[in-house]
Amino acid sequence: MSTAGQVIRCKAAVAWEAGKPLVIEEVEVAPPQRNEVRVKILYTSLCHTDVYFWEAKGQNPLFPRILGHEAGGIVESVGEGVTDLQPGDHVLPIFTGECKECPHCKSEESNMCDLLRINTDRGSMINDGKSRFSINGQPIHHFLGTSTFSEYTVVHVGQVAKINPAAPLDKVCVLSCGISTGFGATVNVAKPKKGHSVAIFGLGAVGLAAAEGARVSGASRIIGVDLNASRFEEAKKFGVTEFVNPKDHDKPVQQVIAEMTNGGVDRSVECTGSIQAMISAFECVHDGWGVAVLVGVPSKDDSFKTSPVNFLNERTLKGTFFGNYKPRTDIPKVVEQYMNKELELEKLEMFVTHSVSFSEINKAFEYMLSGQGLRCMIRMEH
Amino acid sequence: MSTAGQVIRCKAAVAWEAGKPLVIEEVEVAPPQRNEVRVKILYTSLCHTDVYFWEAKGQNPLFPRILGHEAGGIVESVGEGVTDLQPGDHVLPIFTGECKECPHCKSEESNMCDLLRINTDRGSMINDGKSRFSINGQPIHHFLGTSTFSEYTVVHVGQVAKINPAAPLDKVCVLSCGISTGFGATVNVAKPKKGHSVAIFGLGAVGLAAAEGARVSGASRIIGVDLNASRFEEAKKFGVTEFVNPKDHDKPVQQVIAEMTNGGVDRSVECTGSIQAMISAFECVHDGWGVAVLVGVPSKDDSFKTSPVNFLNERTLKGTFFGNYKPRTDIPKVVEQYMNKELELEKLEMFVTHSVSFSEINKAFEYMLSGQGLRCMIRMEH
Repeated sequence: MSTAGQVIRCKAAVAWEAGKPLVIEEVEVAPPQRNEVRVKILYTSLCHTDVYFWEAKGQNPLFPRILGHEAGGIVESVGEGVTDLQPGDHVLPIFTGECKECPHCKSEESNMCDLLRINTDRGSMINDGKSRFSINGQPIHHFLGTSTFSEYTVVHVGQVAKINPAAPLDKVCVLSCGISTGFGATVNVAKPKKGHSVAIFGLGAVGLAAAEGARVSGASRIIGVDLNASRFEEAKKFGVTEFVNPKDHDKPVQQVIAEMTNGGVDRSVECTGSIQAMISAFECVHDGWGVAVLVGVPSKDDSFKTSPVNFLNERTLKGTFFGNYKPRTDIPKVVEQYMNKELELEKLEMFVTHSVSFSEINKAFEYMLSGQGLRCMIRMEH
Repeated sequence: MSTAGQVIRCKAAVAWEAGKPLVIEEVEVAPPQRNEVRVKILYTSLCHTDVYFWEAKGQNPLFPRILGHEAGGIVESVGEGVTDLQPGDHVLPIFTGECKECPHCKSEESNMCDLLRINTDRGSMINDGKSRFSINGQPIHHFLGTSTFSEYTVVHVGQVAKINPAAPLDKVCVLSCGISTGFGATVNVAKPKKGHSVAIFGLGAVGLAAAEGARVSGASRIIGVDLNASRFEEAKKFGVTEFVNPKDHDKPVQQVIAEMTNGGVDRSVECTGSIQAMISAFECVHDGWGVAVLVGVPSKDDSFKTSPVNFLNERTLKGTFFGNYKPRTDIPKVVEQYMNKELELEKLEMFVTHSVSFSEINKAFEYMLSGQGLRCMIRMEH
């Protein structure tokens, strides 16, 4: 029996208060409105961004809210005006969108859509400013337009990547955020050449994906930088060849790296969000040709400071957002690269170090808070 | 009668003390040693860098010294080991070199030669650490390895660009420093596309050359920024279409430009060296694709400060040195572009707003100090 046009009652993990365990509730999910689709979520994983907004430290607290944005699912029904998606399509909801009409979407370089660019403060759909989730009439806030910690969710069509239905959703779902962010930062923005040296700051999932990007680009040295030495063993599997723990040195890490590499690395990618790491990542690239790429999200009041001479000596500093991928145009192509073995699906599996059923979702938060593993997959098990 | 191998007695303008008028003296110029050439200078122009080191405010004072580095001349004789230049060759001495053997020279991207990169503190030849200039046995310091304020000078072969002998030296000599620096910053580094908007900070010779680079690249809007409104009229001739004087506005100039351009310019080029202008030049480029290029040389203790979010929103900041041109490889090609009319020689002439004979060289300093015109050509009139 079709549920199209009907309110769906299903389970969702609701964050009622900052930092308190999520509660699995029965919620009502309204039908998709104009330019929206309703998606049955099959797999969702936990990303740091979910945790930041759940903790709501220094972030705008918005509760009750359904978090979640790294996921894979199947279109259940589509709203008015949706022509390029239909029920049954396999999709990845994405935390940032692509309207295909604004100057950013029309630019070859940008993926920062004017209409659907990430907005962490918005808790409703842009169509009518209302939520599609409710419990006994009480609206529950959306998160990043995705809210994938629910058996069903409603997403703007511009935030949905339609992928090859043969792709295993439990594996490719991590491409909807962190892995593409890191991998794309290297292959789309830093663009190391064969034989280059690359420094990666931060060896979490994003940093390891950035390292994997350096490996497939043919980098000869991949130097991992992290304050947590326990990450070094795992990082070797992702192609990291050398390690620097800033705690082990009396001098600034940029100087340590410059000494290891005869003047600096060819490329660096910063995946921690620490302002000091950002400055080090820039100052550790070689003069004449070095390129540093910032990925990690800083604190609100951070200031990037360096001598302008570091630029004048022909260094380049760029930032990137979601690895410069356009969500609807590019992510299906990345999935295809895994399907046709240009990229290794086994590498993608290696990011998923834990797996829990939906009812155990709070365990995923515990794993992340205690720094265990990389990604915890949450199985919806409809 | 050949002068090869002989000491040449000729006229040179000697800076005996910081800020005191140069004195035309008879100097002795020793023959070129290994990997050096002796050049008869025909034309030399005055650049701000000469004035900075003559004033020696905040610079290492090194006197007596023969200044000058923007020039054109003819090879008089060559030292041991010099195979790619011979007497009679038309050349531009360049303030920074290209050894063709170091990692920078072998890189496609860099022009910051390890051996011959600009060194403002060196007052002698790198071969033997001695000067080739003397007056009654007293050595006179070199400047930037060029010292073109002399009828004859000795230059390392790596700092000599051999050009088409049909090129008018009195015009193309300005390509040996400022004009190439500005033009190259735009065409080699900022690389605006057809229809782009470009902001140029500073409308002196370097900035106007950067504007000319934007014009030949097909930029549709070229916004000139300067504190001196008297420069705006002249700038129109170099393709600048709009003007912003930061003094005319209560808000930061980057905000004024963002409002003029629906969010920011596509490219900006900073040619003043003011740290505030550098920050404005970066912050005025559009998110998603904007590229800012730093050219101007800052004060020693300046710190570049901005919010890291400005990078994360997909802006790029780069610096350049001598427009990213490799002196020996690229500058002869640029001269060729003027000769085959790909570039307009008349535009080059427009930079030369004054002309004096060598005996009047101190007038060139006066023009520059009073902010009159762009370049003053000094005719050696042998």
